[in-house]
Amino acid sequence: MQETLLEWRPAIDEAIADVLPREVDAAYLESYFGEPTFEYDPESIQRALADPIWDLLDRGGKRWRAVLFLVFVEAFGEAPEDYLPYATIPEILHNGTIIVDDVEDEAESRRGEPALHHRFGQDVALNAGNAMYFLPLKIITNNPGGLPESQRLAAYEMLMHELNRTHLGQGMDICWHNEREVRATREQYLEMCACKTGCLGRIVARLAAIVTDQSAEVERHAAEYAETVAVAFQIGDDVLDVEHSLGRAGDFGKAFGNDIREGKKTLLVLHAIEESDPADAERLADIIAAEENTDEEITEALRIIEASGSIEYAKDRARALSEEALAHVDALDIDRDAAEQLRSFAEFVVERDV
Amino acid sequence: MQETLLEWRPAIDEAIADVLPREVDAAYLESYFGEPTFEYDPESIQRALADPIWDLLDRGGKRWRAVLFLVFVEAFGEAPEDYLPYATIPEILHNGTIIVDDVEDEAESRRGEPALHHRFGQDVALNAGNAMYFLPLKIITNNPGGLPESQRLAAYEMLMHELNRTHLGQGMDICWHNEREVRATREQYLEMCACKTGCLGRIVARLAAIVTDQSAEVERHAAEYAETVAVAFQIGDDVLDVEHSLGRAGDFGKAFGNDIREGKKTLLVLHAIEESDPADAERLADIIAAEENTDEEITEALRIIEASGSIEYAKDRARALSEEALAHVDALDIDRDAAEQLRSFAEFVVERDV
Repeated sequence: MQETLLEWRPAIDEAIADVLPREVDAAYLESYFGEPTFEYDPESIQRALADPIWDLLDRGGKRWRAVLFLVFVEAFGEAPEDYLPYATIPEILHNGTIIVDDVEDEAESRRGEPALHHRFGQDVALNAGNAMYFLPLKIITNNPGGLPESQRLAAYEMLMHELNRTHLGQGMDICWHNEREVRATREQYLEMCACKTGCLGRIVARLAAIVTDQSAEVERHAAEYAETVAVAFQIGDDVLDVEHSLGRAGDFGKAFGNDIREGKKTLLVLHAIEESDPADAERLADIIAAEENTDEEITEALRIIEASGSIEYAKDRARALSEEALAHVDALDIDRDAAEQLRSFAEFVVERDV
Repeated sequence: MQETLLEWRPAIDEAIADVLPREVDAAYLESYFGEPTFEYDPESIQRALADPIWDLLDRGGKRWRAVLFLVFVEAFGEAPEDYLPYATIPEILHNGTIIVDDVEDEAESRRGEPALHHRFGQDVALNAGNAMYFLPLKIITNNPGGLPESQRLAAYEMLMHELNRTHLGQGMDICWHNEREVRATREQYLEMCACKTGCLGRIVARLAAIVTDQSAEVERHAAEYAETVAVAFQIGDDVLDVEHSLGRAGDFGKAFGNDIREGKKTLLVLHAIEESDPADAERLADIIAAEENTDEEITEALRIIEASGSIEYAKDRARALSEEALAHVDALDIDRDAAEQLRSFAEFVVERDV
C-alpha cells in the first residue's frame, strides 16, 4: 500500500490543483464558477480559499482516500488514470471536514502546525472548509468521465446520502462529548464511527463503483468493506491509546491517557462502565467527566478499563469487523492483486503497532 | 406579498418538519437517513440538530425564500401545494448559512436572541448549520414531485453551482473585511453581493423552473430577476444605514453609523473613496479601518460619503437593477397576478423605508 500511496501522490495533487489551483486567476474562476455577473476579485479568492486550503494539503496527509478510490477503479477493471478527477472528491471533502472539526473542537494544532483557524482566522478557515464540501462536487457536473445522466445522478444522490450521515455522526459525537453522564450504548458508539468516519470511506468505495457502472451488489460490498474498515480503525485507535498509556504499545506520538483526559467515551470506556461493579463504574465515569485529572487518576481509570476486559473486548470487535471487511472483499469477485491490496489495507488498519 | 407570506407560513413550517421534525425518533432517522448499521441515538440528534435548528426557525424569519419559490411555481402554471417540499430547500439552506455566518463573524445575537453558537455552543451550532446544507438536498432524491432523472440531475447540478458561488462571495466579503486597505472595485462589491446573497435567490428561482420543467430561457430570466433583486436589496441596505445615520430615514432598528463602525466597505464607501479628493478619501479609509470611532468621526465619515454623491449613486444603481429585474419579469410571459407579485416584491425590496 505504502508504495501505491507514494506513486499516485503527485498525480492526485495535480488533479486537486485542477479543482483549485495554487494560484487563482480570473480565467480559472470563469472556467470553474462561470462568468461573473459583475467582476471577480481573484486576489480575495486566493487569500480566502487557495492559500488556506493548500496550506493544509501541503502539510501532508497520505491521500489514502484518493488512492483507495483508484485501487477500487482498477479492481473494477478500469484504468485509474481515466478517473483521477473523481479521486479528489473524497480527499477534498475529508480535508474540509478536518478544518471544520478543528473549529468545532477548538483544536490547537493539525499535522504538527497551528490549526487552520489559528493561522488564517476562524472566518477564513470555516468558509474554506465549507467551500471544500462543494468545490469537488462540481467535478460530477463537469463530467470528465463522460458519464451518462443516470450515473451522474446516482453519484449526487449517494453523496447527499453519505454527507447527511456524516453530520449525524458528528452530531452524536459532539452531543456525548458535551454531556457529563455516560449514556451511549456500544452499538450507538459504533454507529457514530460508521457515520462520522465510515461515510467518507463509503463515498470512496461507492463513487468508484458508480463511475465505473458496477452493479448495486458490488457497490454495496465495496461500501460495507470501506465502512467496516473505518469502524475497525477507530476501535484500533481507541485500543492503542489505552495500551500505549499502559506502557504496552509502541510510541505512536500520543500523550499518556490522552483519550481519558479529553473525556472520550470510547468503546472501551462504555464496555468498562457496563461490565465493572457499580463502584468502579461510577469512579471511571467521574474521572472521564472531570475537567482535570492527575496521573494517578488516569492510571486508576486505565486499571478499571483493563480489569473489566475491555481491551480484549475491543480487540475482538475490531478483529471481527476486519474479518467482515475481508468477506466483503471476497464477495467482490475482483482479481488477485486488487483483492490483496484491499486485504492488506484492512489488516494494516487493525494491526498497526498493536 | 405580506398576505401571501402569512398565508403560506404554517404549510411551509410543516414541510420543514418533514425534513427535520421537532421531536426526533428512531423511526424518523431510519426513514430519512436509512437503516443504521448498528444503532442510532435519537436523543443526540434531537440535541445536536432538532433543538438548535427549530430554536432558530421559531425566532421568526419571513420564509420569503420558500414563498417566492411557490410564487414562481404558480407563475409557471403549476399548483404550489404540489411542490411544497422543494420550497423548504432554499429556506433551510438560508438558515444554515445564517448559523455559519454568525460563527464566522463572531456575532452576538440573531433575531433578537443570542446567536446560536452562544446558546448551544460553537460545536453544536456549526454542525447544525452545516447539516442544513445537506438535509434539504435529500428531498430531490426522495423525489416527492415524481421528477424524471434529467430534472433531478439538473436540480443537483444547479445547487452545486450556486452553493459554490455562495462560498466565493463569502470569501470575498471576509477577505475585504480582514484587510486594512480598501482594495475592491465597485463591480467586485456587486459581484460579492451577487454571489453571497444573490445565489440563494437564484436557487429559489431556478429550482422552481427546474421542478416545473421550464425552458432554459425561462430559468435564466427567473434566476436573473432573483439575483438582481438580491443585489438591489443589499445596496438598499447600505443606503439605509447611511441615511438613517444622517437622520433621514425611519427607524429601522440599526445603531447610528453601524456599517462604518463595523468597517464595511459598502458600495457607498467604495464610491466615496474613488470620487472624493485624496485627503477626504484617505480620511474615510482611516475611519473605516479604525478599531474604534467616536461619534464625531462617524459623522465625519458620513459627511464625506454624502458630499461625494455616493447616496445618489447607490440609489441610482439600485433603481437600475430594480428596473432590470422588472424587465426579466416581463420576459417571463406569465399571468398578470404572478407578474404583479414579482414586481411588487422587487419594488418592496428597493423602496422600503427609503
